[in-house]
Amino acid sequence: MKQIYLDNQSNTKMDDIVFDAMLPYLKENYGNPQSIYSLGQISKDAVEQARVSVAKLINAQSSEIIFTSCGSESNNLAIKGFAYANSKKGKHIIVSSIEHFSVLNSVKSLSAEGFEITYLPVDKEGFVKLEELEKSIRQDTILVSIQHANTEIGVIQNMQAISKIVKEKKIALHVDAVCTAGIIPVDVSSLNVDLLTLASSVIYGPKGAAALYVKKGTAIKTQIDGGVQEFSKRAGTENVPAIAGFGIACDIAMSEMQKNYEYIKVLRDKLIHGLKEKIQHIYLNGSVSARLPNNVNFSIEFVEGEALFLMLDAKGIMAASGSSCASKSLKMSHVLTALDVDTAVGQGSIVFTLSKFNTAEEIDYVIEEFPKIVERLRSMSPLYDHFIKTGSRMKAGPGTNYDDHDHEHCDNI
Amino acid sequence: MKQIYLDNQSNTKMDDIVFDAMLPYLKENYGNPQSIYSLGQISKDAVEQARVSVAKLINAQSSEIIFTSCGSESNNLAIKGFAYANSKKGKHIIVSSIEHFSVLNSVKSLSAEGFEITYLPVDKEGFVKLEELEKSIRQDTILVSIQHANTEIGVIQNMQAISKIVKEKKIALHVDAVCTAGIIPVDVSSLNVDLLTLASSVIYGPKGAAALYVKKGTAIKTQIDGGVQEFSKRAGTENVPAIAGFGIACDIAMSEMQKNYEYIKVLRDKLIHGLKEKIQHIYLNGSVSARLPNNVNFSIEFVEGEALFLMLDAKGIMAASGSSCASKSLKMSHVLTALDVDTAVGQGSIVFTLSKFNTAEEIDYVIEEFPKIVERLRSMSPLYDHFIKTGSRMKAGPGTNYDDHDHEHCDNI
Repeated sequence: MKQIYLDNQSNTKMDDIVFDAMLPYLKENYGNPQSIYSLGQISKDAVEQARVSVAKLINAQSSEIIFTSCGSESNNLAIKGFAYANSKKGKHIIVSSIEHFSVLNSVKSLSAEGFEITYLPVDKEGFVKLEELEKSIRQDTILVSIQHANTEIGVIQNMQAISKIVKEKKIALHVDAVCTAGIIPVDVSSLNVDLLTLASSVIYGPKGAAALYVKKGTAIKTQIDGGVQEFSKRAGTENVPAIAGFGIACDIAMSEMQKNYEYIKVLRDKLIHGLKEKIQHIYLNGSVSARLPNNVNFSIEFVEGEALFLMLDAKGIMAASGSSCASKSLKMSHVLTALDVDTAVGQGSIVFTLSKFNTAEEIDYVIEEFPKIVERLRSMSPLYDHFIKTGSRMKAGPGTNYDDHDHEHCDNI
Repeated sequence: MKQIYLDNQSNTKMDDIVFDAMLPYLKENYGNPQSIYSLGQISKDAVEQARVSVAKLINAQSSEIIFTSCGSESNNLAIKGFAYANSKKGKHIIVSSIEHFSVLNSVKSLSAEGFEITYLPVDKEGFVKLEELEKSIRQDTILVSIQHANTEIGVIQNMQAISKIVKEKKIALHVDAVCTAGIIPVDVSSLNVDLLTLASSVIYGPKGAAALYVKKGTAIKTQIDGGVQEFSKRAGTENVPAIAGFGIACDIAMSEMQKNYEYIKVLRDKLIHGLKEKIQHIYLNGSVSARLPNNVNFSIEFVEGEALFLMLDAKGIMAASGSSCASKSLKMSHVLTALDVDTAVGQGSIVFTLSKFNTAEEIDYVIEEFPKIVERLRSMSPLYDHFIKTGSRMKAGPGTNYDDHDHEHCDNI
């Protein structure tokens, strides 16, 4: 059977070159980087070389890069680490309402400890409302955390404008760039950010490695205490193979960025147009213009999410519902909720995220198979039956007349 | 040149079988375990299979195993996670003074937040003083954390006796078993522990995977917030290849434990006797009888640690000074300090930790080369020169007459 992997925001297949670069550190170069003999120093050199590569990708200094085990850990270190180290200045933190769960649950944890959190609303395209950001800043605001691009809907925030507002008030800015670093240009200097998260496993690198950029002079409290690794900001024996692989993945991402961007964007637009042409009552979620080249997020009316995924899988097509961490929860994602997507429509949402390994033939296959699946599911749907017979939608839930809603959000590509 | 790796407590070479088991998850099985399509479920199955293997190694239930990225993270999660979740019951924590830095620095961090810490002394062999443990328990003591065996000196604590004292008072017990789980039998049920740390990279498994056993019903606060992974106790995309490798490493450790124990112990005793026979003024640190089969820790008088390591490395012999995380610090380790080793002697300390990959020929080589290195260094030492000429030791430091000290600690093997 065909295997078409379109869940690359959840995890990418590793590049063969990355695997080859990891191999010596999985085999003969097994030294602990903290050991002073030569086998240890070989590992140390690999870690430091990777640090240079990661720094280069985001235009940072290598001394500003802290390796962690995953993007979630980096986000926790950024937010809690900064909050605890700077709580004397204030205890107010601002995040957007469509952040990754590792950000949202970090601030939730802080809120139980006396920090106050403001959750910024987004507009129907997924953009943080800048005027709300300005209004929400207080005397005791110490940190703003905004995702560069959203995991689910791929909307790329106007980070320059956000940064300008935040930095004019001399507040620290953390950017979760897991979806962008390595995919589109990310420059910590021009963005003027203080903390930035990036991860390996979504840019054809291995699982088990991620990084946090910490601008020189920014105080953060170590979250994993212990040895002197990572400038004493993150203890634990370095995962050398994964870190080495992450470094190479960054090198490749830099050299291939423009080429991959153009290649993947063509596939993305082919998929969007192909599905819109064949399927009625299908709505693209998130901005069209400021959108990751790899992201397709559709809400499909009159179908049920779970059945959709299972039937796609049965055809060898792998996609996602909402953010990967929450895909087992079949209620509408917090992101679509923040975009004010109608629940009845949002239940049938699907996210395709593309990679450089996808082909036009694969997209053709999806465009051929996916409408059949939708058709089959709709043929079993009493909601669709009612709609076909009457031309009007059934009430979606208590007090909601679905017909009152605007179905055309972001549907103009 | 020969490459003789005797720093296996810092990190072991990975077993080829472990590598082979990881390989599919580094290559074609790259799915995110949280994804509901089949490629995700293959990863999920690998993680769950590994969870069963880890649990089996320590006689736990698989639902009691939380995967983390390293032993340090497990220790942090155990101690901070337990402390934060149970601080209403009390804020007093007891640890031994020879714990790993990830334990010591975790409680240091807690002490800055209002927790009170008691550091238990150890005797000259490295055993926690049980009467001190009993005396130190207070009404508000919530947690005792003791390493099963020490990283540096290999002393295996009388954990049954410790557990009896702690559990009789209904206090939670955390055991850092990084040095023992997979090396000697560890049974969480018979030890009656609540939390136990174990790691992959010291039992021929990969870097990047470790675990925390959390006894059913034990409350801990998540330290890395985010998604629902690891029973919502540790967010972040699972490092599937490393976890799968860790599981296989546990399977192998169980099946080979007795064989490896006996094999390595013979090499250890050969090394100890061989060096003692050829080198004068050399003292074994730590208990002889209750000692890890792989640990040799010698203090060598009239030599300087740094030079010793470099000359060993030049001969292809890789060893450690103190715990691996602190090896760049050449002052005497906190463990030897707690054992009351004289500073002048402790400066020249070296730790050899053996593995199943070492051979008798390698040990012969060390027994041949190491005494020559010591001899050469002593020939350049004014302290040794003074001793040879006068038969007495020079003062080692302000106020310390070295001759007053007992050099025979643990020297009776």
